[in-house]
Amino acid sequence: MAAQKPSIPKGTRDFSPDEMVKRNYLFDTIRNVFKIYGYMPIETPAMENIETLTGKYGDEGDQLLFKILNSRPHEAKDADKEVMQQEFTRMLMQTVNSKILTEKALRYDLTVPFARYVVQHQHEIAFPFKRYQIQPVWRADRPQKGRYREFFQCDADVVGSDSLLNEVELVQMIDEVFTKLGLPVLIKINNRKVLSGIAEVIGEKEKIIDITVAIDKLDKIGVDGVNEELKEKKISEKAIAQLQPLITFKGNNIEKLNLLRQLLVSSEVGKKGIEEIEYIFSIISGTQLQTASCELDITLARGLNYYTGAIFEVKANTGTLTSSICGGGRYDDLTGIFGLPDVSGVGISFGADRIFDVLNELNLYPASVSATTTLLFAHFGEAERMYCIPLLTAARKAGISAELYPDLTKIKKQFDYANKKGIPYVVVVGGDEMLNGELTVKNMDSGTQEKLKIYELIDKLKR
Amino acid sequence: MAAQKPSIPKGTRDFSPDEMVKRNYLFDTIRNVFKIYGYMPIETPAMENIETLTGKYGDEGDQLLFKILNSRPHEAKDADKEVMQQEFTRMLMQTVNSKILTEKALRYDLTVPFARYVVQHQHEIAFPFKRYQIQPVWRADRPQKGRYREFFQCDADVVGSDSLLNEVELVQMIDEVFTKLGLPVLIKINNRKVLSGIAEVIGEKEKIIDITVAIDKLDKIGVDGVNEELKEKKISEKAIAQLQPLITFKGNNIEKLNLLRQLLVSSEVGKKGIEEIEYIFSIISGTQLQTASCELDITLARGLNYYTGAIFEVKANTGTLTSSICGGGRYDDLTGIFGLPDVSGVGISFGADRIFDVLNELNLYPASVSATTTLLFAHFGEAERMYCIPLLTAARKAGISAELYPDLTKIKKQFDYANKKGIPYVVVVGGDEMLNGELTVKNMDSGTQEKLKIYELIDKLKR
Repeated sequence: MAAQKPSIPKGTRDFSPDEMVKRNYLFDTIRNVFKIYGYMPIETPAMENIETLTGKYGDEGDQLLFKILNSRPHEAKDADKEVMQQEFTRMLMQTVNSKILTEKALRYDLTVPFARYVVQHQHEIAFPFKRYQIQPVWRADRPQKGRYREFFQCDADVVGSDSLLNEVELVQMIDEVFTKLGLPVLIKINNRKVLSGIAEVIGEKEKIIDITVAIDKLDKIGVDGVNEELKEKKISEKAIAQLQPLITFKGNNIEKLNLLRQLLVSSEVGKKGIEEIEYIFSIISGTQLQTASCELDITLARGLNYYTGAIFEVKANTGTLTSSICGGGRYDDLTGIFGLPDVSGVGISFGADRIFDVLNELNLYPASVSATTTLLFAHFGEAERMYCIPLLTAARKAGISAELYPDLTKIKKQFDYANKKGIPYVVVVGGDEMLNGELTVKNMDSGTQEKLKIYELIDKLKR
Repeated sequence: MAAQKPSIPKGTRDFSPDEMVKRNYLFDTIRNVFKIYGYMPIETPAMENIETLTGKYGDEGDQLLFKILNSRPHEAKDADKEVMQQEFTRMLMQTVNSKILTEKALRYDLTVPFARYVVQHQHEIAFPFKRYQIQPVWRADRPQKGRYREFFQCDADVVGSDSLLNEVELVQMIDEVFTKLGLPVLIKINNRKVLSGIAEVIGEKEKIIDITVAIDKLDKIGVDGVNEELKEKKISEKAIAQLQPLITFKGNNIEKLNLLRQLLVSSEVGKKGIEEIEYIFSIISGTQLQTASCELDITLARGLNYYTGAIFEVKANTGTLTSSICGGGRYDDLTGIFGLPDVSGVGISFGADRIFDVLNELNLYPASVSATTTLLFAHFGEAERMYCIPLLTAARKAGISAELYPDLTKIKKQFDYANKKGIPYVVVVGGDEMLNGELTVKNMDSGTQEKLKIYELIDKLKR
């Protein structure tokens, strides 16, 4: 067989040991915060039934689903084959959604599978249900720098509680995670009800989505770009003029809230939104965040139509990445589509791969984050190698990650191996060592050597 | 929109918090053993290019791959469409492997992606490369009890070392994992070279695969069944007669080795196999296993054609599951198909989902394996709820997993929540507690209550 040149699908990645330990450090940090705050882990299958996913992420989202071919379609009966042929023609003209070809797709995010989970397991769940979930998701996006087709999300959600204390807690968790990671962040907060109020008072209630989609782009396309888009979407000139103070306003949170209060005085939903924001800010300022700062951002919309209350977005204060590394919000009826109405939820999602890129850029890893074995036993021959076996067992029993160079080879090659793998301690066993039971232990960083009995070595390394 | 009744694809599972903590305990146990033995983690993408996977698992394996539809095939050019139509027809008649429809599939195991990884990253790797990998795999098998379409494998492999000490180490790791899990196991060992020698001396060298496939079924179909199958495969009557003592032999490892020595005296490869088995057994008996027992099983073949030396299979000594829960072996040229010849490897794979089923059946979890929060703050109203916030923060800062019931509701409902979630301690805050700063702490197991200051409570729970 001719050798295949190995490669992996575009937009996907292998993770080597060095990367794995760094990623595990990131996941463990997030996971520990989730746990301390009382969130419980769940996992859902990589594949969901296609009906579970389609229609939940907009038309574009549907196009980005990775669909899975039904297994063994060649076993289809003849009658099916004709249907398949027809189906296939239709598929070519439109899109791939033939039930016969594909009934499953890879999950696109963790929120919709979670909503499906809650409905399916509603009778086993103690509400309010606080769950976390750390799993990969797949999107057939055009791959580019920092955007992958397989990437990890780390989500924490509470469903079955209307309390705004959940929002407060999620903000605290964001602060805690990024404080532990040594990455100061800005948490932007908005409220969908405020956005609804704005649309209402400028007389464009029906166009709330167009308006929020446009002003959400302020960072990217600037004020003129936003106004252009609003005009295109047939928002009245008067309404656009009324929006200007909101879009261009610079001020602190209190000043922004004052502006909103004046503007939204006639909108019930708008006033409710202001009240929610004030409540959240008041408790947060009472308990104090550790390193994160919090900012009311009236232009924040996050494009996700299912948000009904608070909206969060987090950006790193340092590094070159300008896109968001965490986001979330409150959704009042995500489980309704699966048959369980009136369950309010609120959650956040950490974008592990973007955070990973930032941590790598700034090299924010503690020295203890290392992939490698602590101790290598090197040897001069068969007798020495056999002599090492009980020593190796003793080190491992003491919880020291240790290995024996398995092959009989030159000592230099064994040291090269230790160097390349970054192993900090190498024990060299030759005839002398076997005679007097003293091991020559080389510290690979300092280059120094010392003679130690095995129990002294274990003591040293366990410290 | 009409509500959808939620479900998941057959053969897949959701994991609820209770299951997740048990699974994490299992994965952590395996992962820690891998680490202590000097294995380093990698991860590969869920999707591999289809050429990477096809032809590696036999015809049946190819049929069991979950293939992924190319994204946006509706954007195909007209010229492509005709090809697609032709392709589709062919596909219906044969099998789904049109490049236009599908270029990717979900990984089927961790061994082939690992071989692909080694070749692709050969210049970054320090050989011998000891890696572990814990990830799900997907197979379109017919779902049945204990067999899933998405399941986890936990693999440890060494590539780039011929030393039999690797085989010894893998056996020790199996012993260590199952000792830690409290599950005594039988490790069956065979050697492909012995099987080759047997085929050689009975004059059926070319039919080694048919012979090993047949005798591998001894447990399931008995001696008569095996002989029947050998006859069907056109193995000569003389050869079948010569095989009988091997198939039916009962004895200890030494007696089995003696029998083999007599039988294989004229086969070089056979004698090499015996020598390897003896070497592995001699070191294992020197270092002593903790709870596992080791048995030479001449009928063990594991169906995998790529094994060239040692073959391992592990069965639980207790519980009702009779199928294997771990297996592996040596393969001398797995990376050859990807263009890197002459790299020997040896590895084992723990079948996490089967082990999970056994642990559940026998309830082998330590008491510390629990999903839940340690402490719930319950409250009688808004003032009390606010009073709890700094107490909650203090508990969490001390590393105690804690939560505040978020909504204002009856105290009974809050206790129901704690009960349902299995939270062991509930603090109840009412007017008295706020006045004197003493918290009423209820132990939910014993039903007893005590009055504690917050720092006393934290001290108590940290112990």
